[in-house]
Amino acid sequence: MTETLKNQLKFLIEADKTKSISRQTLLADESRRETVAEHSWHFALMAMTLFEYCALENVDINRVIKMALVHDLVEIYAGDTFAYDERGYESKLKREQDAADILYKLLPENQAQEYRGLWEEFDEMKTPDAVYAAAVDRFQPFLNNYLTGGHTWVKYGVARDKIYERMLPVKEAIPQLWGFVEDVINENLEKGFVKE
Amino acid sequence: MTETLKNQLKFLIEADKTKSISRQTLLADESRRETVAEHSWHFALMAMTLFEYCALENVDINRVIKMALVHDLVEIYAGDTFAYDERGYESKLKREQDAADILYKLLPENQAQEYRGLWEEFDEMKTPDAVYAAAVDRFQPFLNNYLTGGHTWVKYGVARDKIYERMLPVKEAIPQLWGFVEDVINENLEKGFVKE
Repeated sequence: MTETLKNQLKFLIEADKTKSISRQTLLADESRRETVAEHSWHFALMAMTLFEYCALENVDINRVIKMALVHDLVEIYAGDTFAYDERGYESKLKREQDAADILYKLLPENQAQEYRGLWEEFDEMKTPDAVYAAAVDRFQPFLNNYLTGGHTWVKYGVARDKIYERMLPVKEAIPQLWGFVEDVINENLEKGFVKE
Repeated sequence: MTETLKNQLKFLIEADKTKSISRQTLLADESRRETVAEHSWHFALMAMTLFEYCALENVDINRVIKMALVHDLVEIYAGDTFAYDERGYESKLKREQDAADILYKLLPENQAQEYRGLWEEFDEMKTPDAVYAAAVDRFQPFLNNYLTGGHTWVKYGVARDKIYERMLPVKEAIPQLWGFVEDVINENLEKGFVKE
């Protein structure tokens, strides 16, 4: 086995750690919080399943799926930053860039560039692939939150405007889901699960 | 929202259940068993990362990744069948076909055919895509087993020949990993973790 392959296996072993990082979102059955690996899988399956509703031009679904698979790998060292944690977001960029420096050193140059590039493109949310990916990445925990009595919205007292703002990529990329998103927000507002 | 889209969301919500199905394989840190969703994600990432070593002609990595994402969905209703459980394998086909009948009813016809087709192709292991997918699907728990003191081999008293037989797709599809596979099996035999 070459040193290169050995290091790629080390990378794949490091990746196992995403199974031990809990996100804030609960499983639909409320039994526990979902892991980063589980979220990444659900995101990829969702991107593939809802692709016919993507309203953006020139989206390459195969690239979006790869984005989903790698987009949270930096959390192995940087930890998961909750979507509505403003304080955490201040240090997120630096923490995640440092994490990427460590993690991607294990891969050969061209593969490191590909994976890091997919993650950075996802984070910048400027290309059609990245906007569709962001829409699905945000819709997945939104759906689970809906199924679990607005769990993270209640726990962290999240306000309606913040949820609207965060969900805007869905309006742009998957407009046929937008009515559902608005209905869920309104329903949770009426129930007191989302703050005015 | 159309009835079709509503049913696709129901499918994606059903899919959440793969986060509650435990496989026999432990996480690398031995903290618990991995879930089906986590395995599917790791399999997809591994297929993508090791693709340069694939020795088979005409493998479409994008199809293999999709295979990885859907290949265990039937376990939502059929449960996970451990690789070396000969009794379980007798009923596996029937249980999984019944599960697919229920699960894929939620998707529009063309999508149901695509997903079910990917899973059946994977299971039959005849096309190059399916052989490469099988190699990775089997290498992933093999690697985790190696990292956790041969956990499932010890627990179920698995014999060397059975492991060799199960790992043969790796020899065919990713020959550069075969030396490592043999070394691990021999090392675990010497330690008494694998039966003669």
